[in-house]
This record gives sequence, C-alpha cells and structure tokens, in this order.
Amino acid sequence: MEIKIEKTEHPGKLGNLDDVAFGSVFTDHMFLMDYYDGEWHDARIVPFADFHIHPAALVLHYGGEIFEGLKAYRTAEGKVQLFRPEQNIQRMYNSAVRMALPLFDKEFMLEALIKFVEVEKDWVPSGFGTSLYLRPFMFGIDPKLGVHASKEATMCIIASPVGSYYAEGINPVKIMIEQEDVRCVIGGTGEAKCGGNYGASTRAGERAEQQGYSQVLWLDGVERKYIEEVGAMNVMFKINGTVVTPELVGSILPGITRKSIIEILKDAGIPVEERRLSVDELVTAMKDGSLEEAWGCGTAAVVSPIGEIAYDGVKYTINEGKIGELTQWLYDELTGIQWGKKEDKFGWITKID
Amino acid sequence: MEIKIEKTEHPGKLGNLDDVAFGSVFTDHMFLMDYYDGEWHDARIVPFADFHIHPAALVLHYGGEIFEGLKAYRTAEGKVQLFRPEQNIQRMYNSAVRMALPLFDKEFMLEALIKFVEVEKDWVPSGFGTSLYLRPFMFGIDPKLGVHASKEATMCIIASPVGSYYAEGINPVKIMIEQEDVRCVIGGTGEAKCGGNYGASTRAGERAEQQGYSQVLWLDGVERKYIEEVGAMNVMFKINGTVVTPELVGSILPGITRKSIIEILKDAGIPVEERRLSVDELVTAMKDGSLEEAWGCGTAAVVSPIGEIAYDGVKYTINEGKIGELTQWLYDELTGIQWGKKEDKFGWITKID
Repeated sequence: MEIKIEKTEHPGKLGNLDDVAFGSVFTDHMFLMDYYDGEWHDARIVPFADFHIHPAALVLHYGGEIFEGLKAYRTAEGKVQLFRPEQNIQRMYNSAVRMALPLFDKEFMLEALIKFVEVEKDWVPSGFGTSLYLRPFMFGIDPKLGVHASKEATMCIIASPVGSYYAEGINPVKIMIEQEDVRCVIGGTGEAKCGGNYGASTRAGERAEQQGYSQVLWLDGVERKYIEEVGAMNVMFKINGTVVTPELVGSILPGITRKSIIEILKDAGIPVEERRLSVDELVTAMKDGSLEEAWGCGTAAVVSPIGEIAYDGVKYTINEGKIGELTQWLYDELTGIQWGKKEDKFGWITKID
Repeated sequence: MEIKIEKTEHPGKLGNLDDVAFGSVFTDHMFLMDYYDGEWHDARIVPFADFHIHPAALVLHYGGEIFEGLKAYRTAEGKVQLFRPEQNIQRMYNSAVRMALPLFDKEFMLEALIKFVEVEKDWVPSGFGTSLYLRPFMFGIDPKLGVHASKEATMCIIASPVGSYYAEGINPVKIMIEQEDVRCVIGGTGEAKCGGNYGASTRAGERAEQQGYSQVLWLDGVERKYIEEVGAMNVMFKINGTVVTPELVGSILPGITRKSIIEILKDAGIPVEERRLSVDELVTAMKDGSLEEAWGCGTAAVVSPIGEIAYDGVKYTINEGKIGELTQWLYDELTGIQWGKKEDKFGWITKID
C-alpha cells in the first residue's frame, strides 16, 4: 500500500523541553490507516488533528485498544535513529491477537513508522537524553453497543518530543509493594500492551504517590507472592552478584528494554536469571544485604534505580539509596547505543535517512 | 447544576426494529457533562454527534472508561418507566472509584438520566420485550501520554431503541467452559464495569462462536476452578431445587438483574445460595442429573436459558435443551415488573412523566 503524505500548512517548531510534561506536546503530523471490510485502507501521513469518534465506538466502551512506545534518537553527529523498532511492531501484532483487534502486515507497519519519522525528523531534539517519543496505537471504532470483536479500527502513530528523563540526575526512587490491587493475571491481558492493564493499575499508583512513593511493585494475581513489574516497567534485582528478573509467565509485559538488558548482561558474562522471585525471597535479600541493586526498566526511563522498597509497613533501603554500579553501567551501555555514542554491536539500530 | 437542553433541528423517527442489531441505532440527543479543574461543568442535553477526541486522550491508550446499561420500558398503557436506575448510578460510582476516574454526585446523575429519558421518551418503543436501551458512560480525555489518573473526563448518556431479545422465542443457548483465557481476577477490575474486562473477554467469545457456542463460561483467575460469569452475564444454576450463583468475591460484576432475581427468589421462598461453585461440582451435577436448570442473567437478555455446556470436549445437555420452569417463571416475573404487567411489589420502578 502506498503511504500518501499531506503536509500541514501551519508547521510548528520544536521548542525548549525543560519544563514540558512527558508526552504533552506533539509534532505536526500523524500516521493514519483505517480498517473496514476486512482490510486496511488509506495509509496516510496527515496534519495532527482530533479524531471524530462515534459515541458508541467500541474503544470508548469495551477497551479495544493497544499501543506501543519507542523513541527516535539524535546522535552527536545529528543523525536520527531508532532502537529495535521491529520488536515493537511484533509486540503490537501480538497484542492485536490477544485483544481480537484487526491484524496487520508487520513489514508495512515498520515501513510506515520509518516513513513517519522521516517526515517528522526535524522534531527529534538534540542533546543526550532527549528524544522523539513515538506512539503507535490502534483502537476499535465499530459504532455498536453489542459486545464483539472489532471489525472497524483506526491505526495511528503520533510523536512527542521529550526532554531528558534525568534532567536533574539519576535519583533512585522509593516504591511500595502493592497488596490490595492486582494489575493482571496469567490468562488475562498482562502480556499485551492494552489499555485495560493501565486502567487497572492507576488507582494503586495514585495511592502510592499520596504516600510518598513513585511507583508500586506488583505481585502476581494468583498467589500474591511473586514479583511481576514496577509501575509500568519491568523490574530487575542484583542479588549476590546475579541479576534476577521475573520470567515471562503470561501476566508480565515482554519489555524490549528488559530483553535488551538481558542480552547485554549475557554478552558481558554477568549471571542473569529469568525466574519467579517471591516477595519473601526479596525481603530476606533486603534484610541480609544480599540485594545489592534494584531497578525498573522501560523505554521512557531506560533504567530507573530503586533506592527504597516498603513492604508491610517496613522500609528497606537498597545500596544506601544510591544508584548501583551495575545499574549505572547498564544505563550507560543502553543509552550509549541508543544515542549513537557506543558501537551498535548487537545490530539494534535502524538509521533514518 | 442546571441541565441545559438544546433540541435537534433534524429530529429522526423511531423505525421498525425487527432487523436492527442491538445498540446500532441511536436517538436524537445525548447527555453530556465535562470534568476539568476538579469539577463537573456544563451539564447539557444536545443533538447526538461524534466526539472530537485528541489523539493522546487517555481513553484511547490507558483504558480509563466505565459504563452502565439499563432500559426504559413502555407499559401497555403507554407510560415510560425505568427499572432500579439508582442501582446503575451507584455501580457506576463504584466503577469510577476503582478506575481512579472523577467521582460525581449520584443524585444529580439520576436526575440527569431521568431528564434525558423525558426528552427522548418518544423513542421508547411499544410492544412487550422492546425497550430503549440507555448507556451512561464516562471516559478520561487528558491529552497526555504519561500514565496517570484522569483529571479531564467526559460523562455521556446515549440511548438506542432495541427490539425484543427473544423475537423468535426463548431458545436455550450452548456455552463452553473457557480454559485458556481469563476475564479477570480478585484484586483486578472484575467488579467494575470498565472497558478492560470486555477487552480481555473478546477473544474467547469469538473462539467459542467459531466452535458453535453462544458464550463462554468463565472460571476464576486464581484456581481456574470456580464458575464466575457467562459471557458478559451473571450465571445461575438450579441444583436439587436450590438456586446457586457465584458469590461476589471481587472478580464478578455485581449484576442488578442478578440481585433482583435473588430478591425475587427469597421473597418466593425458593432456596438460593450465593457461594463458590466449582466446575467439578457442576460437572457432577450435570452427570447425575441434579443440575435441573441453568441460565445467564443481565439487562439485555433478562434471563438467557442454557441448554448445553461443553467442558473438556464433553457436551452436557441441561433439561433436555429446553427452558426450565423456574427460568421461565423468573423471566415472566422480571419482565412483568419491568413492562408494568405485574405489580411493582419491591418498589423497583421509577416512572417517567
């Protein structure tokens, strides 16, 4: 399918991002494509504008919505590049399968993503840590209140220039283990990047914030015993020199940053285990000091060191509340590759012309 | 707050509903109200029209959406009435709490619902079994990609005239017990009427249809052992003369039809138990014949008799595939009250002027 391009007559300009909230300013254009009659139609890059959505549209009632998040980075030489975009497209496809949303041609979507970044490349900010956040998403729009799989859908990509996540330096966060709400369960939608997982998580996140914590640490929905994710990120722990991260049992998002860190660790010969990790084991490791480092990982923050974990009213400090050596090294390795400061030894970079 | 009314200049007309899919035609107007700056603003009844929604709006990404479903009924005397609308408003409030969406004044929302039905009352069809389906819903619209509780939201009520669910008579349905996907889990959002629960259910429903079943019977997400719901309805079983329905453990929608049936049964002196019911107990009861009747219950169908249940490749016929005596009686009692053919002895009816 050809991608038509209609440029805006009122182009905006990339401004200063220092005081801009994450994902709150957008570029001039958006990619759009419509699904109906069993096919995708009319792939196009058009001026950024509101959607006109029928009040009965499926997305407003029955949660038929999936998304992805990735970034375009500007290197010191001024070139623009993407980090493992094919992984995001593949995960979005998997999400569509789980949510019974229309499937799509993965190669075409990758091409559309790259074309869109080419059109918007002046919006990729300069400066290490800054980037153009890309948000592919799809939602069902069938204007019918009967509960059903979506037969009409919109595919969209929007982009938002974002400042450095760590403009004021990398400060470890305080998190609390959530014991009431559950994010999701094996057999549910935890593996898919769909709206419902985030809707289910919001209340606990708000309550944690009110108590002075940045995020919650989620336990599994079956036994309420195993660590799953932190906030909307994957989570990793360095215990006695080995990195432990929850295995992908079905209720955990298969993060691309998570996957990349595991590959970097293996390549460097640092022991890493994907396995179930119980809260009891974690508490023991916090008590006896064998928990050396802990961090969340995801596209927005890359890695987010954890300085304190609260559980059952007890607060445990990790690595004296400072970022750990391995955490810092992983941050440097990953961001080095992403912003083109380090060799792309794993073949993860897609350059934009 | 005053409710402003702006009437359409192009009124439509209630047509024949025989071949109209559920929830696919809509009345002339919609109720709207906007939340921002910590308050609800501008309650209004206006011509039915598409929403203009920002591409980054929370509802399109993070599942911040809740809804309700209830009906306006026209009696044989031509009067319009509602069935327990205050229960829907209360449940919507509870859903907003779980989903960290803005709360609202329940009395005002009930008033708004009644006012809206007054404006649209010519759209309530005549004829037993037909009704005007009402859909209150709320969704977050904050145009920011950071994951957060919604600080901007839209409250809406739309209405769709619907024909009789049983235009061709009440035929028992075939259902299958779902063993792969899970709808939700205790601690999740199963008690809330939110989009994510429906999004998580869609794939299993589609697969069941492809195999010739109307719905799936959901098992709990923890032990995969206890019966929870059927499709998007609550479920009840008559075993050895006693009605058994899953208790509201947190992962089950507190249905208003469910609640009303329990009250009718208790009033009639028919034994009813709200308790956990395992699939093993159900299979035993199907094998030894002590399962006398089974039905789903919800606003759309009122009661939906179940004639066959498939589990692990074995098909069990219930009551020779015919509607049971008690199922029929409950249908007659409930619809009798709803359409004004029977006395409103429980005080469930709200009359519209």
